[in-house]
Amino acid sequence: MGKLVRFSISIEQDLLTAFDALIQARGYENRSEAIRDAIRRQLVHQEWEEGEEVAGVITLLYDHHRPGIGEALTEIQHHALPQVIASTHIHLDITNCLEFIAVKGEAKAIERLADRLISLKGVKHGELTATSTGRNIK
Amino acid sequence: MGKLVRFSISIEQDLLTAFDALIQARGYENRSEAIRDAIRRQLVHQEWEEGEEVAGVITLLYDHHRPGIGEALTEIQHHALPQVIASTHIHLDITNCLEFIAVKGEAKAIERLADRLISLKGVKHGELTATSTGRNIK
Amino acid sequence: MGKLVRFSISIEQDLLTAFDALIQARGYENRSEAIRDAIRRQLVHQEWEEGEEVAGVITLLYDHHRPGIGEALTEIQHHALPQVIASTHIHLDITNCLEFIAVKGEAKAIERLADRLISLKGVKHGELTATSTGRNIK
Amino acid sequence: MGKLVRFSISIEQDLLTAFDALIQARGYENRSEAIRDAIRRQLVHQEWEEGEEVAGVITLLYDHHRPGIGEALTEIQHHALPQVIASTHIHLDITNCLEFIAVKGEAKAIERLADRLISLKGVKHGELTATSTGRNIK
Repeated sequence: MGKLVRFSISIEQDLLTAFDALIQARGYENRSEAIRDAIRRQLVHQEWEEGEEVAGVITLLYDHHRPGIGEALTEIQHHALPQVIASTHIHLDITNCLEFIAVKGEAKAIERLADRLISLKGVKHGELTATSTGRNIK
Repeated sequence: MGKLVRFSISIEQDLLTAFDALIQARGYENRSEAIRDAIRRQLVHQEWEEGEEVAGVITLLYDHHRPGIGEALTEIQHHALPQVIASTHIHLDITNCLEFIAVKGEAKAIERLADRLISLKGVKHGELTATSTGRNIK
Repeated sequence: MGKLVRFSISIEQDLLTAFDALIQARGYENRSEAIRDAIRRQLVHQEWEEGEEVAGVITLLYDHHRPGIGEALTEIQHHALPQVIASTHIHLDITNCLEFIAVKGEAKAIERLADRLISLKGVKHGELTATSTGRNIK
Repeated sequence: MGKLVRFSISIEQDLLTAFDALIQARGYENRSEAIRDAIRRQLVHQEWEEGEEVAGVITLLYDHHRPGIGEALTEIQHHALPQVIASTHIHLDITNCLEFIAVKGEAKAIERLADRLISLKGVKHGELTATSTGRNIK
């Protein structure tokens, strides 16, 4: 967790009232936690923009009946070591699979890997979710 | 501006250091202003989600040589009163126009209006930018 | 896969040239696949907007040293059955965990669940990634 | 407009049916136009990613009673010539102003300019909307 420091901010009464309502709706424990979250969100964004080492999740929705799709996904992931950490497969129904792949590496390389997987024939929809290794985001 | 109140938040030292660097890179005057901005951003997002009265800008890139495009844009805007407040036209080059239209109204109606304009033949690219009337965001 | 149909579209030569370059950069096999992907992306977006049954992934970066965080995450997920399908946990380093949770359900309920998890103290960063059950997206 | 070419794509019957419904809901004239729009959207995204010359709109919601805000906005815009093309000011109510500034230039420079304006004290909310000069997007 690291050492905690306190500082005070000034804010318009009306803005604070609106923020407190939003905090409660989202389920935050207190204002500090909600503000820390907003700060971390901006730092994660910055890590990706500056091409640092990041973590992420590649989500793929695909039809496993499509010939060769399983092999192609496995092949690309094995060649993308060490970026690929683990993957989980959900059997949504008789045709649809949801696969999510945890990745870590240099931001640009992760983006290229996601492009390759998402563009595969048989992958209906794919998204790269950007998060952080957490090392520089306390 | 309304009455200012102060409150203090607690935060990990390392997180604060990273945030201070980001604040400086973006040009914020101080931490309070950066945090107020993050708060307001969430409130704007909420206004759109809840379908309240909002403000926005519809940005359109189009080719003015396309037959009928100018008339169609004008026609739709006039029928969309009172949502359309004003529009500005930039002559980017001999073929390309950038038009941005300030709008205000119920969120869903604004989205439908943007869809209609963006889907017009001749409009190359369009975006709806979400902001607020500012009435509830101090 | 369903029955394939063919239809033809007309497009400016220059636009097609630029698109072909983008297709190659992303690794698409052919134009049809790239266009189908763009179409499906819009349909996924629409399913979430209209509050249909959807699938998604909630990604959480958290510090497992934070007292009670593990229990809180497990507790919320168990109470969110049947929306929660499975979760995978990655040990990023000595403090940081990456957890991704596959979810399926009504869009609004999924959003509320993600809000609750992301707002937990100890969760540094969280994202809800929107995808589809694939049932209506062929 | 440039020379039109035709090419045909193959697509699952069910996917096409869903797409046709979406096209109608958004108001597109025909499939070709909807697909061209999806293609152009990806090209605009690519121009920004690769730092090319782009166009955009900076939207600012601010409180004109805030001392010095008007001067600061004007000052920054004048120093940002030639990026700033024109700005339009909307008087939303007795305190709130909506200003939108048309900009053109190298993507990174536009982002820095937007950061500076949005971080100004008195600016309640700001967004940079990314579009294109249209030169390479037919």
